[in-house]
Amino acid sequence: MNELQWIEYLKKASPTHRDVIVGIGDDCAIVKGKGRYLLFTSDLFIEHVHFTRRGADFKQLGKRAASRALSDIVACGGVPKYLGISAGIPKGTSAQHMRSLFTGIKEYCRKYKIDIVGGDTSQSSVLFLDIWAVGETKKYVLRSTAVSGDYIFVTGPLGRLKFDQPCQLRAKEIQALVKAYKVTSMIDISDGFVLDLYRILQASRKGALLWSEEIPLTRGKKDLYRGEDYELLFTVDRRENIAQLAKKYFLVGRIKNAAFGYKIASGGKNEDVSVKGYLHF
Amino acid sequence: MNELQWIEYLKKASPTHRDVIVGIGDDCAIVKGKGRYLLFTSDLFIEHVHFTRRGADFKQLGKRAASRALSDIVACGGVPKYLGISAGIPKGTSAQHMRSLFTGIKEYCRKYKIDIVGGDTSQSSVLFLDIWAVGETKKYVLRSTAVSGDYIFVTGPLGRLKFDQPCQLRAKEIQALVKAYKVTSMIDISDGFVLDLYRILQASRKGALLWSEEIPLTRGKKDLYRGEDYELLFTVDRRENIAQLAKKYFLVGRIKNAAFGYKIASGGKNEDVSVKGYLHF
Repeated sequence: MNELQWIEYLKKASPTHRDVIVGIGDDCAIVKGKGRYLLFTSDLFIEHVHFTRRGADFKQLGKRAASRALSDIVACGGVPKYLGISAGIPKGTSAQHMRSLFTGIKEYCRKYKIDIVGGDTSQSSVLFLDIWAVGETKKYVLRSTAVSGDYIFVTGPLGRLKFDQPCQLRAKEIQALVKAYKVTSMIDISDGFVLDLYRILQASRKGALLWSEEIPLTRGKKDLYRGEDYELLFTVDRRENIAQLAKKYFLVGRIKNAAFGYKIASGGKNEDVSVKGYLHF
Repeated sequence: MNELQWIEYLKKASPTHRDVIVGIGDDCAIVKGKGRYLLFTSDLFIEHVHFTRRGADFKQLGKRAASRALSDIVACGGVPKYLGISAGIPKGTSAQHMRSLFTGIKEYCRKYKIDIVGGDTSQSSVLFLDIWAVGETKKYVLRSTAVSGDYIFVTGPLGRLKFDQPCQLRAKEIQALVKAYKVTSMIDISDGFVLDLYRILQASRKGALLWSEEIPLTRGKKDLYRGEDYELLFTVDRRENIAQLAKKYFLVGRIKNAAFGYKIASGGKNEDVSVKGYLHF
């Protein structure tokens, strides 16, 4: 079973509390609190899978690990507030490296006013972090609510973020966006533009037509499949006036019905998009 | 650096939000919400450290993993509500084993009406789970607030829980206890009675005198040091009428000032308690 299949299996543990808006399967879990929604997420960061120690800047690794989980909160329209760290640390790991790793997480959290509130540490045969994060919002955005005719936007050029860099968190910007426009779905690009848009399409049971010439690429077509990009991909209701929005962000296509499929218009022809990307299995 | 030292290092990331009551260092993080407190915790469960696959009942492993994190919520006086699972899964791991592991978590959560709301899965070179849990309460209990003269109680005989069994969650019982009595501190026995009481003493900057004959043991003195026991250890204000309480639970000693030290009265003499227990480093 691969990563997606395990998530499907876990999803079958259906929520028993009526205050659970979204459980497993979106970027975050969303739970109704008093006067706001609470968002929870966790993100693994494992040696040999997500990073290698060789030549690594451990402070940067820490920042990257933190940014991955926190970006999920932002992608659900939330403001990240608390973070926890569970760390598996092999015997003989350099204390200096670990200190740098944790310092990176601390610095990143300080920058965005996020409190490190807890966690766990243990010996392990492989170095890994599981970062969990808690956020809140008055208005959340899901993956599963895109509608035919919606406009598809991406917040910035694909492939711009250097591979080993942490992303910027844009919680305020996204909160303002969600307040001003009817944003029907959103996801952060963690496993590549093509695969992450596919996740929206799957969750929403929709298709899409992308406009090849409109997709902002930094280094060419491979940017379409590049993971850890962290630009946000979102859809906006067709009835919205998107003139201003299209100046700030990149309008790259439209949501279609499921029967249409997942296609890209290039040189006057619609071609099927082949879904490949970075799966951890 | 060992486990405790890493926690000390992380603690220095001091909270910036005024609503963080307790950050790193207690069983849970405690955050002030509207009309209640939110509790967060995470607990690692790593192959070769916390369990071995050989001959293992994977459903039981799942239950144990879940119970460890959820017990921390109960030990802070909370009611666990939501759980997340981050799982590192080596290539070639039996799908049947993983299904049993997840089924164990699901069954345990269903029993206690806890929703599995999220998580992450990834390939890994070692099998591990990081279980995070969210709870809530109107009244929380810390480790750090024991006072000289307090009575020390333990909820049940040490060493009673078979090593590979999940513990019972006693959220309702503990909520009733905390409502009826001034419980000044609490911890669940995860690393052994002696070490976990020591954690209360350290956090509260206090000493203690234990009464050897009063400590309920199942298999002898080694039970004092046995991890994964999950009985709750708590202290009660000296001014409380503890007659009823002492019938239900085991009264095993008194909190003393720090200068007194950590001692056990046995055969008419006070002996120093040697702190050893199960540390993961």
